[in-house]
Amino acid sequence: MVSTAVPPHALSSTFLLGLAPVASWFIVRPFLDPIPSLSGLYTSIGFSLFAFIATLYLVPALGPTFIKAHLSGRDLLKDYATPIPESLGLVCASVYTLALILFIPFAFSDSLTIHLTQTPEGIFVPEFPHSRLSVYLSSLLSLLMTTILGFLDDVFDIRWRHKLPIPIIASIPLLMVYFAERGNTHIVALVFSQCIELTSSNKGPLYYLYMSLLSTFATNSINGSEVGQALIIATSVILNDLFTSLGQLASAEVEFGGVWSAGMAYGSKELVERHLFSPYFMLPLVAVCSGFMYHNWYPARAFPGDTLCYVTGMAFAVVGIQGHFSKTLLLFFLPQIFNFVLSCPQLFGLVPCPRHRVPRFDKVTNLLHPSKAIFMKPPSKLAATVLWILSFFKLVDLTLHLSGVILETTNLTILNFFLVRLGPMNEKKLVQVLICCQICGSVLAFSVRYGLAGLVYDGDRR
Amino acid sequence: MVSTAVPPHALSSTFLLGLAPVASWFIVRPFLDPIPSLSGLYTSIGFSLFAFIATLYLVPALGPTFIKAHLSGRDLLKDYATPIPESLGLVCASVYTLALILFIPFAFSDSLTIHLTQTPEGIFVPEFPHSRLSVYLSSLLSLLMTTILGFLDDVFDIRWRHKLPIPIIASIPLLMVYFAERGNTHIVALVFSQCIELTSSNKGPLYYLYMSLLSTFATNSINGSEVGQALIIATSVILNDLFTSLGQLASAEVEFGGVWSAGMAYGSKELVERHLFSPYFMLPLVAVCSGFMYHNWYPARAFPGDTLCYVTGMAFAVVGIQGHFSKTLLLFFLPQIFNFVLSCPQLFGLVPCPRHRVPRFDKVTNLLHPSKAIFMKPPSKLAATVLWILSFFKLVDLTLHLSGVILETTNLTILNFFLVRLGPMNEKKLVQVLICCQICGSVLAFSVRYGLAGLVYDGDRR
Repeated sequence: MVSTAVPPHALSSTFLLGLAPVASWFIVRPFLDPIPSLSGLYTSIGFSLFAFIATLYLVPALGPTFIKAHLSGRDLLKDYATPIPESLGLVCASVYTLALILFIPFAFSDSLTIHLTQTPEGIFVPEFPHSRLSVYLSSLLSLLMTTILGFLDDVFDIRWRHKLPIPIIASIPLLMVYFAERGNTHIVALVFSQCIELTSSNKGPLYYLYMSLLSTFATNSINGSEVGQALIIATSVILNDLFTSLGQLASAEVEFGGVWSAGMAYGSKELVERHLFSPYFMLPLVAVCSGFMYHNWYPARAFPGDTLCYVTGMAFAVVGIQGHFSKTLLLFFLPQIFNFVLSCPQLFGLVPCPRHRVPRFDKVTNLLHPSKAIFMKPPSKLAATVLWILSFFKLVDLTLHLSGVILETTNLTILNFFLVRLGPMNEKKLVQVLICCQICGSVLAFSVRYGLAGLVYDGDRR
Repeated sequence: MVSTAVPPHALSSTFLLGLAPVASWFIVRPFLDPIPSLSGLYTSIGFSLFAFIATLYLVPALGPTFIKAHLSGRDLLKDYATPIPESLGLVCASVYTLALILFIPFAFSDSLTIHLTQTPEGIFVPEFPHSRLSVYLSSLLSLLMTTILGFLDDVFDIRWRHKLPIPIIASIPLLMVYFAERGNTHIVALVFSQCIELTSSNKGPLYYLYMSLLSTFATNSINGSEVGQALIIATSVILNDLFTSLGQLASAEVEFGGVWSAGMAYGSKELVERHLFSPYFMLPLVAVCSGFMYHNWYPARAFPGDTLCYVTGMAFAVVGIQGHFSKTLLLFFLPQIFNFVLSCPQLFGLVPCPRHRVPRFDKVTNLLHPSKAIFMKPPSKLAATVLWILSFFKLVDLTLHLSGVILETTNLTILNFFLVRLGPMNEKKLVQVLICCQICGSVLAFSVRYGLAGLVYDGDRR
């Protein structure tokens, strides 16, 4: 069946209005009945629900404005030419960062509550966590810079090679705040131990490689897929936080002998707070990604543009670094890493790289086929060897001249790989395959992270 | 004489390359020979020089890219239709914020030096100024948000009424960090005393009014003029910092009995640091504004767009609030306040407000005449009274029907006021008049601020 236009989105305003009281309840809840260490989490869920509502509402509402500002594109995988608003990831990124900014006072409300209520007894008077505030603010700065750079990329269509330093520029605030605080190790140690560990053990370059991976992944995805992938990774990170916190609380309980139930020992409280940093950034991300995915799901009525990819990538980077689990996070990125490694021959100029590497759409059958890169001159010996190896593992399909010289290769992306392996399929199915692959990746990551023994915490496996 | 095209900009690359070593010297200087409390200032001057070079170079270099991305406009005050790149204020704003971000480690280098060098003696071990870092970071967040919102305004051409909340949204990070730290008065008191004073004495609304003034001023200026105005205000703020610091140092010297020359007493050091916040933000602003003005000067080869106006406005707001001299700052804004008050009847719908209120350009004489707002229906009694009063003070020119009913009025802006008062003139002269007016405003402000007695510091006159 060939569709002829973009179907309208059907979004009940009753549903949106119905969600608002639920969101408000989550924000008001901690004020009515404070829960030690968890009130911030309640507020975060409340803000995330509001962000979800805002994204669901704003994406279609602002679509025409984006089209008017020349920010629209034709869906390459459809047979109709109706312009689809592009760069709407900017709306998501704005809602996301605004939610995080409005959340600032609540992120540290626990410290304030304890500061205010326990002072007369003189027992627990933790300093206001200025260091954590600085970390939070520098993360926000990085996210805002990513938003700006991503949107600039959308507006000015920056060339591929000029895009690579974008995540590095955006991470400058994180690094600068780290440098600014370097003289102050006794306060910084706790929060920045991972950063210091990264630097001292020469893992700094890994961090940049990892962020380059993210940006490369982002620029090499097609519409729809990356939002779904980001959603799964964000959910995995939240689950990981949950498991780790539970594990740490359990071990803390053993250590401190059950003080947890009454008022929570200071030690375990610190641990929980450290792990709250990550859900504070992930919950609103899940919210805006879900909201956007509703409009981006097949057939897409809005394209994210580069902004959303960059911002989600940076959010993961920030959380991985500040939240002390870069290794686990990398595990969640298995499909992206696979895609990056597969793409390397094209990214580094060994194999010709066309402007768009999305699969080829066949109007007649409505199916997607792997798109191909054509060799204008015979490939170098190295390129030929690499392609033959890839072909041996059925990662690419090669078109050969009678003489055995390679004429064409399928483009080196995970999507084309699926099409090579599983045969032509329609767009919806391809996205489903990709999302399944992402979920399998997360399941595998959890198995590696927590071993087969389950949820027992082990410090060495971070 | 009627020009027929935009003259090319003549910018010697030798000049730019010659400035770089000077800039580097300023950055390296404090490392070679540390100067107590002033090393940050040296570094700031170095970064500002680099920002100046970057702006001078990038504005013409990126012009074609902006035109390609549909960000260009016709100069309304010229007779040629060559598209001039618009929104290049984004380049300035990016250079400005990047300079401020890269400056983060140096802004607090004094504290670190003292922390590291004086520890063995055990006398001066000031804590790392996390609170000041938070303030700095929240200011940066506000500036970045302003950049985003300003550029969105350029791209999406947001309507006048929707623009008003922009500075309020952008100031959320400032307020949020203030709220987040509210429980921690003993640390916050020093830095936030002005904020607290503002809140406790119900001056909060004034702060918003003041920022609305800024944004209104920004949206009601024409090309060229606002950059010059911003430059003069920024320079005035730096001069004011200089005078205040000198005054405070003098009084501190009297108080502490001359310890200043040897190693500077802790008390006066604190005072100096507090006043350094403002030059740290103003020096790079002067740099990017001067760099941009070179390309924006008559005849303009680049338009700033809304981004630059918003960002400069927000920079002044941030500095005024965090640096404890909102009242003095308002004095520097006398021409803008006059413009705002004069504009009120049009802004609040009493008098019709056309899309553009810039003066009318006469191709034949090459002179500017006051532009007019036409009454489609007779003005209300209130509107007529207001216009008659304004006309009595020669602030507007009215066109009357034989019956005495007002048919037209000159638009209510400071530029049209100059043209009404001084007669038609060419664009260059009008900009010069405006800049003279701005300088007179600053001179008047300094006279009010420091009295006629000169530079003697008086705490009550902040």
